[in-house]
Amino acid sequence: MDMSDAQGARERLVVIGGDAAGMSAASQARRLRGPDELEIVAFERGHFTSYSACGIPYWVSGDVPDRDRLIARTAGEHRARDIDLRLRTEVTEIDVDRGRVRARDVDSGAESWTSYDKLVIATGARPVRPDLPGMDAPGVHGVQTLDDGQALLDTLARTRGRRAVVVGAGYIGVEMAEAMIKRGYEVTVVNRGKEPMATLDPDMGRLVHRAMEGMGITMVNEAEVTKLLTGDDGHVRAVATERAEYPADVVVLGIGVRPETSLARAAGLPLGDSGGLLTDRSMRVRGHESIWAGGDCVEVLDLVSGQQRHIPLGTHANKHGQIIGANAGGGYATFPGVVGTAVSKVCDLEIARTGLREKDALRVGLRFESVTIESTSRAGYYPNASPMTVKMLAELRTGRLLGVQIVGHEGAGKRVDIAAVALTAGMTVDQMTALDLGYAPPFSPVWDPVQVAARKAATKIRATS
Amino acid sequence: MDMSDAQGARERLVVIGGDAAGMSAASQARRLRGPDELEIVAFERGHFTSYSACGIPYWVSGDVPDRDRLIARTAGEHRARDIDLRLRTEVTEIDVDRGRVRARDVDSGAESWTSYDKLVIATGARPVRPDLPGMDAPGVHGVQTLDDGQALLDTLARTRGRRAVVVGAGYIGVEMAEAMIKRGYEVTVVNRGKEPMATLDPDMGRLVHRAMEGMGITMVNEAEVTKLLTGDDGHVRAVATERAEYPADVVVLGIGVRPETSLARAAGLPLGDSGGLLTDRSMRVRGHESIWAGGDCVEVLDLVSGQQRHIPLGTHANKHGQIIGANAGGGYATFPGVVGTAVSKVCDLEIARTGLREKDALRVGLRFESVTIESTSRAGYYPNASPMTVKMLAELRTGRLLGVQIVGHEGAGKRVDIAAVALTAGMTVDQMTALDLGYAPPFSPVWDPVQVAARKAATKIRATS
Repeated sequence: MDMSDAQGARERLVVIGGDAAGMSAASQARRLRGPDELEIVAFERGHFTSYSACGIPYWVSGDVPDRDRLIARTAGEHRARDIDLRLRTEVTEIDVDRGRVRARDVDSGAESWTSYDKLVIATGARPVRPDLPGMDAPGVHGVQTLDDGQALLDTLARTRGRRAVVVGAGYIGVEMAEAMIKRGYEVTVVNRGKEPMATLDPDMGRLVHRAMEGMGITMVNEAEVTKLLTGDDGHVRAVATERAEYPADVVVLGIGVRPETSLARAAGLPLGDSGGLLTDRSMRVRGHESIWAGGDCVEVLDLVSGQQRHIPLGTHANKHGQIIGANAGGGYATFPGVVGTAVSKVCDLEIARTGLREKDALRVGLRFESVTIESTSRAGYYPNASPMTVKMLAELRTGRLLGVQIVGHEGAGKRVDIAAVALTAGMTVDQMTALDLGYAPPFSPVWDPVQVAARKAATKIRATS
Repeated sequence: MDMSDAQGARERLVVIGGDAAGMSAASQARRLRGPDELEIVAFERGHFTSYSACGIPYWVSGDVPDRDRLIARTAGEHRARDIDLRLRTEVTEIDVDRGRVRARDVDSGAESWTSYDKLVIATGARPVRPDLPGMDAPGVHGVQTLDDGQALLDTLARTRGRRAVVVGAGYIGVEMAEAMIKRGYEVTVVNRGKEPMATLDPDMGRLVHRAMEGMGITMVNEAEVTKLLTGDDGHVRAVATERAEYPADVVVLGIGVRPETSLARAAGLPLGDSGGLLTDRSMRVRGHESIWAGGDCVEVLDLVSGQQRHIPLGTHANKHGQIIGANAGGGYATFPGVVGTAVSKVCDLEIARTGLREKDALRVGLRFESVTIESTSRAGYYPNASPMTVKMLAELRTGRLLGVQIVGHEGAGKRVDIAAVALTAGMTVDQMTALDLGYAPPFSPVWDPVQVAARKAATKIRATS
């Protein structure tokens, strides 16, 4: 059945993907246009909509008591707002020429075409899952979707063992290391990079490395997984690298994601180097008047380097959804780009970054000075003042802020926002030194740690300019 | 003796006031110019240098175990860096024409003149102490200096009573209310304003009011103190207003400060409406080539209103000192101004503000929209996510951010820095909506509360423009 037959005078907006970007777009469009003007059909191949994938590590750890708390808006809530949401329905083809998508009911296998006037592609990302022996064995888990999280929790409930290996030491890897520690596992993190948290420079990653060892986590860096070994029962029993084997009752994969753009690729839509869809400022797919894309399946403009990047983060996906919904709903909104801000934690260690690392700056031809300072989260004399390290990069001559990395404890991570706003505004480190930031002994030393770094950077820039 | 006789080829920098601004200036000048080039003489009438007056409430509360922890740099440390620091020596006159100051030894009463090539005025502020009966009675304490703090602690050690009245409900008042609660007192706060924290709009001050009542503090607003009643022993026994009497075993005055500029006034130096010294961008006193002033005795430029204001805060004093020291030491630095950021807490309540209140905006002819939102410090599903209220003002038509006020709990206060940087950069609320701020469930909802407010403000501005 071609559902386009059913279409009347009103327009139809079709959304592919029912998580943050897709359903935010649908909701925002509905806010601007009632059901008499705009029909909204959303296809989601999984069981859930609008959930916080970023929350999965905390559900696994037990910090979040149940899955439903991660669901911001249920299918029923979307349907109550006249969004025709079809769960367990996977879009298998986008026919750009005829303005329609083909969708398959995952359970029955039945397929049908649905025409669209406007299309939103929010197909998200898929986890990197290297093609290695044993990768599909029971006990090996990704943590990308709620279904993944449930499967991991089911394994943990069934498994008697107490040894977990986490593959990868990016955000997901370190957060899952914390989750497994909290569940009482002995945790080994096997990491390809020189240090954990490759989104930091290695000198800052080294601080994370040491802190994680201090938590009792075994850190194995510069190690490439070659295969996963299984026992007689077929269940995973160890992770092998070229040099060693690490016994594992459960393996968690946290090795990053790639844009899920196979549909877009097949439809001939423009993709960037990362495989993410390319959009304009209004999140419209380049060259396509009536197709928008957002969330983990697109590339975004990095305002500091001027380059396109793939940065899968829920906060961007939500913004994209809002902007797409505004534009698809007849309003106007744009997404200017990102500065690459991220914050994470492992147990009581807070890790944050924004802007360029040293290698990013070098890659785009920017010369810089870099400084690293130690300070504290509160006035030194105030109880529970905790140490933090701030690294700052500033451009030679101009003194323009290029990036900040922070490793510390309670109160350290969100300080990165100071730098994120300053980067967006194009401030110099001299200007940052003069910023009027909140000060009182329970909140900050009299010079905020970010400003201590800015002051040192400004002095260094002056000395070399 | 005229000490100018002793002067050789090198210049002499004289500093009046040995706390944050003065000693930062001295230290920074010394960093740039060695003792062979620059003699530095600093006069301080009290016993201490370079201490954190902002830390006194936490010393009184017992959070900070002893006084010396509040001293960032001792007299001995300054002297070891070739700064000729004279404690208990009060400057009694500035002779601008002849380039000299007259100083009196507080203990002996001996006076002498010291000539200067360059002068730094860092005389700080003096507490407002209304001329009311009983104001000088034993048991009535200011908390401006370390000596004040020690006197209060001595009273607390001697006094058997358990009732404290705090007069004033600004930062010092609410911090001292917390301190007295922590010491086990029944606390009454008597406040002239409609709500506590007059640096907030009354609707936000109302939240502080309720929260403080929830802590067991008796809040008396719109009450003018008429006298302090004393007992037969002469010790304070109650605070009287026009309507009632509040029994008090100890009274803490937290009713603000005024610039301490009597010397400057007598010398004919330019003062603003608040009585604070007027300086240029390099912190040089207007019209005087070789005299700088900084800290609590100057007015600063409010970048949002474009007006001069008196904002006594340690963070500004430290910056001023650095800048003065750089300029007096032959370098170059400027202080662009402030946006009016402040953060404070009462027990577990965090209070922050930056930019203009409604009445500030009206006073300078700015029309605005104002929004107030409720959000949480972390993702709603994450443990210990605490509620916070954010109020935001944005200019009509342009959408330019004008001010932010935050009342919440752990993690709320320092979020004001996002707004402080955005204000400095002149951002609109639309631009703030797009900011790339640090997000992860333990740190923030997917839209940071400040951005939730910005989004709502942007929508309201669009609707009315």
